[in-house]
Amino acid sequence: MAEISQSGNVVTLINVFTVRPEDQQPLLDLLVEATESVMNRRPGFVSANLHKSFDGTRVVNYAQWRSKEAFEAMLEDPAAVGHMRQAAGLAESFEPHLYEVAYVDEA
Amino acid sequence: MAEISQSGNVVTLINVFTVRPEDQQPLLDLLVEATESVMNRRPGFVSANLHKSFDGTRVVNYAQWRSKEAFEAMLEDPAAVGHMRQAAGLAESFEPHLYEVAYVDEA
Repeated sequence: MAEISQSGNVVTLINVFTVRPEDQQPLLDLLVEATESVMNRRPGFVSANLHKSFDGTRVVNYAQWRSKEAFEAMLEDPAAVGHMRQAAGLAESFEPHLYEVAYVDEA
Repeated sequence: MAEISQSGNVVTLINVFTVRPEDQQPLLDLLVEATESVMNRRPGFVSANLHKSFDGTRVVNYAQWRSKEAFEAMLEDPAAVGHMRQAAGLAESFEPHLYEVAYVDEA
């Protein structure tokens, strides 16, 4: 199970895809396939966590990597690039940014 | 520590704030204060996890609530509304959506 913590020693990719509702499930299926066939074999991969919005208009990948360098090296992998192009084709837009966890509070 | 899982029995709010870099830390400070003074006392609050992008342009709140109903009841709380207005004033835009976890993969 992925854990969110300030001391997690990871960098976090949050990639928000905006989709037409009919493309939400196809994009999810594609991202699952990309994760299983390419991403989770890359050095530095920690976790991928795919989310679908109840309103049908968004898919979010909340992914953890061991370092910025590991994430950036993945971006040069031709297999990864191929999957990302396919994902871009199913989305109206996508916004990937790299984050650090700044604060955590729990009930 | 917040955990991401498909069986977590939570709904997930992912709220992406777009900010000017000089407003990133002030917005984070405001969201910490809102979490500690209002959100984490609300029924159904599970966790709030604030993230800041390395590029300075985004703040993301990845928050877990016990149910949609608990989240929606919070939106009617005048103290919460006051904090959300202040946050909106510091952001160029914000995009809150409610999600379910669709898939999890770990190294």
